[in-house]
Amino acid sequence: MTNIHDTAYEMEKAIRESAEFKDLQAAYENVMSNGTTREMFERFRDTQMQLQEKQMQGQNISEEEVEQARQVVEQVQQNSEISKLMEEEQRLNLIINDVSRIITKPLEELYGMSPE
Amino acid sequence: MTNIHDTAYEMEKAIRESAEFKDLQAAYENVMSNGTTREMFERFRDTQMQLQEKQMQGQNISEEEVEQARQVVEQVQQNSEISKLMEEEQRLNLIINDVSRIITKPLEELYGMSPE
Repeated sequence: MTNIHDTAYEMEKAIRESAEFKDLQAAYENVMSNGTTREMFERFRDTQMQLQEKQMQGQNISEEEVEQARQVVEQVQQNSEISKLMEEEQRLNLIINDVSRIITKPLEELYGMSPE
Repeated sequence: MTNIHDTAYEMEKAIRESAEFKDLQAAYENVMSNGTTREMFERFRDTQMQLQEKQMQGQNISEEEVEQARQVVEQVQQNSEISKLMEEEQRLNLIINDVSRIITKPLEELYGMSPE
C-alpha cells in the first residue's frame, strides 16, 4: 500500500515536470492573461459544463441551446490562443488516459478472467 | 513523457503486488469457484449495470425494478463470500481514488489558480 502511494507521488511529480504539463500551463496562463480571451474561454467552459450537467440529469437540451453552444465553440476555435490551450489539454489527456489504462489493467484482468 | 509512462508501469506492478489486490483476487476467485454464489454475484452485477445505464440515459426506473434490485442487494449482503468480495473491492477503490486524487493535483491546481 505504501508502495502504491509512493508511485502515485512519483507520478504526480513526473506529470508536473513533463513538457506536456509545462506547455499546458503556459497555454493556460497565456489565455488567462488577456481579458477578452479569458472571458471567451470561461464562457465556453461554462456552456460545456451546463450542457453536460443537463445531459447527465437526462434534461432536454433545446435547439436554441445547441445553437448557442455551436456559436461559442466556433468563436473559440477561431481564437488561436484558446485553440492552442485545447490542443495542449488533449495532449495531456491522451497521456492520462494511457496511464489510467495501464494502472487499471490488473483489475480488468481479474474481472475478465472468469473460469468458464 | 517516458517518465510518466515508467511510473504508470511501476504503479501497475505495485497494485498487482499489493496485499489489497491479492486479497481481492482471492475473494473473487472464492466467489467464482462456487456455482450458486457465482450466479448470485453475476445477477447482482447485471442488475446494477442495467440500472446505471438507464440512469445515465435518463430513462425511468420503475418501482418494480427498484424493488427487484433491493432484493438482489439484500440476498447478496447475506452471502458472506460476496460481502467479503465487496469489502475488498471497496478497500482497493479507496486506494485507487487516493491515487487519482494525487495524480490529478497538478491539473486541479492549474485550473484553480486563475489570476483574479
